Amino acid sequence: MKYAFANRVRHLQSSAVRDILKIVGQGNVISFAGGLPDDDLFPLEGIEDAFNRVFKTGKKSLQYMETEGYRPLREVILHRMAKKGISGFTSDEVLITTGSQQAIDLFSRIMLSPGDVVLTEDPTYLAALQVFKSYEAEVVAVESDDDGMLPGDLEEKLKQYHPKCVYVVPTFSNPAGRVWALERRKQLIDLVHRYKVVVFEDDPYGELQFTENEVYTPLAALDDGTRVMYTSTFSKTAVPALRTGWITGPYQIIRMMAQAKQANDLHSNSLSQQALYELCTHYDLDAHIKHLIEVYKSRMEIMVRCLEVANLPNVHFVKPKGGMFLWIEVDERIDLTSLLDKAVEHGVAYVPGEPFFAGNPKKNTMRLNFTHATPEKIKQGMNLLTHVISTEMNKHLVEIGE
Amino acid sequence: MKYAFANRVRHLQSSAVRDILKIVGQGNVISFAGGLPDDDLFPLEGIEDAFNRVFKTGKKSLQYMETEGYRPLREVILHRMAKKGISGFTSDEVLITTGSQQAIDLFSRIMLSPGDVVLTEDPTYLAALQVFKSYEAEVVAVESDDDGMLPGDLEEKLKQYHPKCVYVVPTFSNPAGRVWALERRKQLIDLVHRYKVVVFEDDPYGELQFTENEVYTPLAALDDGTRVMYTSTFSKTAVPALRTGWITGPYQIIRMMAQAKQANDLHSNSLSQQALYELCTHYDLDAHIKHLIEVYKSRMEIMVRCLEVANLPNVHFVKPKGGMFLWIEVDERIDLTSLLDKAVEHGVAYVPGEPFFAGNPKKNTMRLNFTHATPEKIKQGMNLLTHVISTEMNKHLVEIGE
Repeated sequence: MKYAFANRVRHLQSSAVRDILKIVGQGNVISFAGGLPDDDLFPLEGIEDAFNRVFKTGKKSLQYMETEGYRPLREVILHRMAKKGISGFTSDEVLITTGSQQAIDLFSRIMLSPGDVVLTEDPTYLAALQVFKSYEAEVVAVESDDDGMLPGDLEEKLKQYHPKCVYVVPTFSNPAGRVWALERRKQLIDLVHRYKVVVFEDDPYGELQFTENEVYTPLAALDDGTRVMYTSTFSKTAVPALRTGWITGPYQIIRMMAQAKQANDLHSNSLSQQALYELCTHYDLDAHIKHLIEVYKSRMEIMVRCLEVANLPNVHFVKPKGGMFLWIEVDERIDLTSLLDKAVEHGVAYVPGEPFFAGNPKKNTMRLNFTHATPEKIKQGMNLLTHVISTEMNKHLVEIGE
Repeated sequence: MKYAFANRVRHLQSSAVRDILKIVGQGNVISFAGGLPDDDLFPLEGIEDAFNRVFKTGKKSLQYMETEGYRPLREVILHRMAKKGISGFTSDEVLITTGSQQAIDLFSRIMLSPGDVVLTEDPTYLAALQVFKSYEAEVVAVESDDDGMLPGDLEEKLKQYHPKCVYVVPTFSNPAGRVWALERRKQLIDLVHRYKVVVFEDDPYGELQFTENEVYTPLAALDDGTRVMYTSTFSKTAVPALRTGWITGPYQIIRMMAQAKQANDLHSNSLSQQALYELCTHYDLDAHIKHLIEVYKSRMEIMVRCLEVANLPNVHFVKPKGGMFLWIEVDERIDLTSLLDKAVEHGVAYVPGEPFFAGNPKKNTMRLNFTHATPEKIKQGMNLLTHVISTEMNKHLVEIGE
């Protein structure tokens, strides 16, 4: 049977992320592929207690809710953002979403007409690229180094493309684990004001900071409240199952997104919003996050150490200062997209870097997640992975007679 | 500050439904306006028990989940649909959504290009109209009577407009409380097969059936599995707060919708999906629904009796056989859209029928909800409402010297 789909489905494809979740579901492969937190660390008792507190408030807790979300939770979010320097907003300027993914989607829905341009880092978050393309927008990559987008190239592309927005993950980016320097952040804010463009700051990982004496100021804290949309989520700090994220920014945009959300799903799960409010007010979420940081940081260090010990030629990476991912560039003769099958055969999975690129993909890159596997599994998996890569490397060396 | 929104936001507006929820939130008005179930009837203990069962399964219950939803819940849904005659599908053909609203939205997203036509009943579900328009589709109303769409007009419009789909609420429709006759259902299925069009069957209220000896066969039970998308929800039978609905239909369409859902919100709240599975397997949901039916039916009868006693001239309505709404047409000189303010002043709210029309609106119509207010409030509210209408009626009679 043939069905007449809309034009925009040409850009909808099952993503690598999706296929990855399927690999993770299979038992025998050690997976560095997903973006999953470790479920052993989930604050189950806190969550259970939070739900039971909500149930005690009575049956009204199970009714429909306004589209914008549970106001006491929005107040808590304002308070948490203020500690990161994001201030000047009221709870009317906070929209609760079904994960930060929905924030990206709703923003795109109200902003992007077919042919509109979005500027991004390169590589950048795969599922954001998919959303932009699903609205038939054109994605243009801005040149970046380890400190963030290069202001010169950014300005050139702002001039040339008149983009609708600049999408960035400035703190512990996915996939590259990059942190923007403060100066670059300020330059970005300056440029988007001059060119009257909105920045979408995606910050799901900002709270998972491994360094103790550094401050990574969110773009939203550097703006005057008119040019930055800031989104984050409870999926990495509390649990993913509640699918609760949020977005903050200028009221006109938040208001329009709420109208789009009303058409999309009326409102997000309201019981979970109330439970998260209870969790934030009756459980020490910050102490929990501190614990997550300790565990994740030590796993990252184990992974990095494995890589250092393996001492593969022509391997480059930057030790992550936070987040969930290690981004690795190997010898340019190795195609990590096609090597994935072999790696999975050997019992280890990763995400090839290729689909994260908006521009020309570097096929010799990959993203490794260090938060889901145990230290023991990380060691085993890294042994398998470095073996697969070095075998492939040797093959190239033999082939070209090096 | 001015922001450059996408073209499609022209069609996004705060809906009547939304403004209604705000009226409901205010204390002193008796509201027949919303579409809310009665929270006093919510199965709080069953829900609480269901969540605690899920928590007992351990921390994995709080992890990310596949986009399509929790498979055991999809199996339960298949089983429940089979009892209504909908069979031949597997759990791969069930997609869990954030309420059935998201099912309408995702379907539209993958099906409707700007300018595409959707055929609907008239009046029809307001928020569906908003979704279709938000994708810049054109909505064309098909002539209907109390038994459903008129096959002659439907065929003519299938020929003339080559629509992408036909959207219907054939059982206890919103807003009209209408039930399609079996013959009309069969004629619709026949026509969409001949004209190769997909039907979207929206069935949120089907389980709330007040008549005992009648069977209202879903369109999906009359189809061969190729032309009907069937959607329903747990919002009316269990609770709205969990925002869990589903859609079933041809695999190709479900698969494409899952890809759109991945971009939209990755997956729906997975803890709630697991809890609903526990509720369906450890709680007598059918007995609960039977109780809801008894209570809602008696409230509907009280409301109808109030209307009969008031004996307003030129009032027409059909006594609902199920669902949540009573649809009333009053004397055609009365504009119920502009009368709403006065009614609210007098302490009672309703939804004017006007925004539910895809074609020419009848301004002398309104939708009353009979599930949320208590019997006492229904009597009080109907007294207020019939008083406001009869005062308005007398004014017209005086004005024109009748």
